[in-house]
Amino acid sequence: MKTDFASRLTKLGTETAFAVSQHVAEFEAEGNKVYPFHLGDINIPTPENIMEAANRALQDGKTGYNPSVGIPQLRDVLAEKIGNERDISLSRENVVVQPGGKPVISKFIQALMNPGDGVLYPNPGYPIYESQIEFHGGIPLPYDYIPKSNGFSINRDRVEEMIDTNTQLFIYNNYQNPMGGESDLDEMDWIADLVQRHDLWLLSDEAYFNIQYSGKPKSIVSLPGMQERTVILYTFSKTYAMTGWRLGAAIGPANLMKIFAKLGVNDESCTNHFIQYGGVEALTGNQEGSQSILAELKKRRDSLYGKLNEIEGVSLYIPNSTFYLFPDVTDLYHQIEAKSYEDFRSRVLRETGVSFCTREHFGTPQPNEDRKYIRFAYSGISVPEIEESMAIFQEYFERQYALTLP
Amino acid sequence: MKTDFASRLTKLGTETAFAVSQHVAEFEAEGNKVYPFHLGDINIPTPENIMEAANRALQDGKTGYNPSVGIPQLRDVLAEKIGNERDISLSRENVVVQPGGKPVISKFIQALMNPGDGVLYPNPGYPIYESQIEFHGGIPLPYDYIPKSNGFSINRDRVEEMIDTNTQLFIYNNYQNPMGGESDLDEMDWIADLVQRHDLWLLSDEAYFNIQYSGKPKSIVSLPGMQERTVILYTFSKTYAMTGWRLGAAIGPANLMKIFAKLGVNDESCTNHFIQYGGVEALTGNQEGSQSILAELKKRRDSLYGKLNEIEGVSLYIPNSTFYLFPDVTDLYHQIEAKSYEDFRSRVLRETGVSFCTREHFGTPQPNEDRKYIRFAYSGISVPEIEESMAIFQEYFERQYALTLP
Repeated sequence: MKTDFASRLTKLGTETAFAVSQHVAEFEAEGNKVYPFHLGDINIPTPENIMEAANRALQDGKTGYNPSVGIPQLRDVLAEKIGNERDISLSRENVVVQPGGKPVISKFIQALMNPGDGVLYPNPGYPIYESQIEFHGGIPLPYDYIPKSNGFSINRDRVEEMIDTNTQLFIYNNYQNPMGGESDLDEMDWIADLVQRHDLWLLSDEAYFNIQYSGKPKSIVSLPGMQERTVILYTFSKTYAMTGWRLGAAIGPANLMKIFAKLGVNDESCTNHFIQYGGVEALTGNQEGSQSILAELKKRRDSLYGKLNEIEGVSLYIPNSTFYLFPDVTDLYHQIEAKSYEDFRSRVLRETGVSFCTREHFGTPQPNEDRKYIRFAYSGISVPEIEESMAIFQEYFERQYALTLP
Repeated sequence: MKTDFASRLTKLGTETAFAVSQHVAEFEAEGNKVYPFHLGDINIPTPENIMEAANRALQDGKTGYNPSVGIPQLRDVLAEKIGNERDISLSRENVVVQPGGKPVISKFIQALMNPGDGVLYPNPGYPIYESQIEFHGGIPLPYDYIPKSNGFSINRDRVEEMIDTNTQLFIYNNYQNPMGGESDLDEMDWIADLVQRHDLWLLSDEAYFNIQYSGKPKSIVSLPGMQERTVILYTFSKTYAMTGWRLGAAIGPANLMKIFAKLGVNDESCTNHFIQYGGVEALTGNQEGSQSILAELKKRRDSLYGKLNEIEGVSLYIPNSTFYLFPDVTDLYHQIEAKSYEDFRSRVLRETGVSFCTREHFGTPQPNEDRKYIRFAYSGISVPEIEESMAIFQEYFERQYALTLP
């Protein structure tokens, strides 16, 4: 078997969360019950009107190629809706439809980063940022977070310490995965000032922008001087329960979007034609579907938060956005004398069926990091199952605690 | 406006055929009639049973993520069908579902080519080969073809001249785009021997493998020693009129397919979930749809070939595969005193409405290339329109010829 693969592959990362899925699949195949909190997938159907619109386009013969930038109708409604929600003015030329949100990450890196350029990105954060930076020869500059009463703040000192004249890009994920937290206005202003002062490009990963349980979201692109240096990652995946449709968009300066289109011609020709009509319906049609998805997610959040909060040794806050909780489980970790994050995760899975990702699935922990965190995604599990699972989870740790009593 | 884009973009090519589409759109917007022979898109609907299967999966909730490698059912039927048709044994592990055939090209290059490696590829040929080779830092080694009575042969001397110890990859497109020709067995044996002698990887772009008007196709992967060094590019686009669905697959050694899957996790997460059930139906269901697509294409080929063959100054052969004709139009070119391929193309479009690509859209002509070729794609135009267009086309050149008489 030939094995002379390209050496760039040694720098290619992955989503280690998929290894958890693999473990879960094997554990289930042995006949065990699993409570799935590990993946950010959604077990709620896509709203009916969106499915109907896609099928209508399919029957209507929208089965041939379409422009690499996407169909004009979808680009127009994306420009209008994304512009309105963010208080900026956009036109079709600012929008390139993509087969999902993820392709925006690799196009952003390939279009704007030279080998040797530094890229600031969140850790904990979505692991593909780091993988794409390293794969394309950039210098990874992971910034960490500091716990605050209602979430996490970016460690500004660390950012200022790392940034230098080679730094070119800043990757920003407000409404954070995995932590669920968000920037306050002061933090957002600070980032806007920083990237302008250092003349950086900014990727604003807004996958969870429309998953808000109260109030209105805010995008950094609306701050003065930011629109010309920002690419928004937009996706239909979360808001409309369309993760498997692979439909998203890059939104940015028109000259840069031409480059994204050219990369698209090379990589994928175009996005599936008929599903884009589903996207048009999602944005312009009846919104009851997305409202009911949000209402269901809120019930799950409240249930899971309530249950976790009752457990001795767990500390967490209740995020207003995303579908993640990111509890500090340091005491539980030590209680069962876990040897590693992976030991903790796999033992809890085996003993309780509760499956989650740990902080380690979102980047290598900093050397000085002594608190232990895990991520619960509640997008793929119902309220009754949340309640059932948390009773088992709590009981397991109480039993372990009792065993350690003198 | 920020314009500090990455320098690798200077090496990124594109499909210049899209510029023809743009020109055509503008020309049509001025109220002109166009006969579209320029794009390899298909104006025949996807077979009903395939659309129904995809819609059934959609209604059935196949809207969440699926594995990066594709759903097991589709991988299994691809392994069986592709293996049977090529006399090789394949299993699920040899198959990675892709959002179209095109992503196989960039994954092949990224997984197997180091910067500085030489890559042999056809010119004329699909322009994305060259673009991806250069974009990822390879050395492009374009091989040309020599006309023969029933098509084109690879210029073996040129290949032997270019190949050296830095050469790592061979890109092979049997059932060629744009020429429509194919290898005889001797040529296929020669390639198999060459790539084994020089220990190369081979990409077998088999986009038109199932577009055969008589007889059975043959894949180079079936020759001894080839399976372990070959990646097949498979696509549903042509055979099932599914260009806009974006559904294809990479088929190759299992260890390499793991790398393709990892690149997929980085680039696109996964291929659209529910359309893969359409792919399963395409391969295992009623084949009347694909047979009737092929029958229609054959009628168009015969009509177009017959009409072109009647034109003084046009010489061509009738391919048994693909949906392209590649006439030698050197005499017509000189007859209208064309200054360049682009001059020839745009003048004929303006004067007749007949729109085609030229040889130049498939790579830079060799310095010694004195014959002039254009490509007619007959996948997007009906027989009556073919007949109407060719009468106008013939009449135009006859009129021009009369003007030059003393």
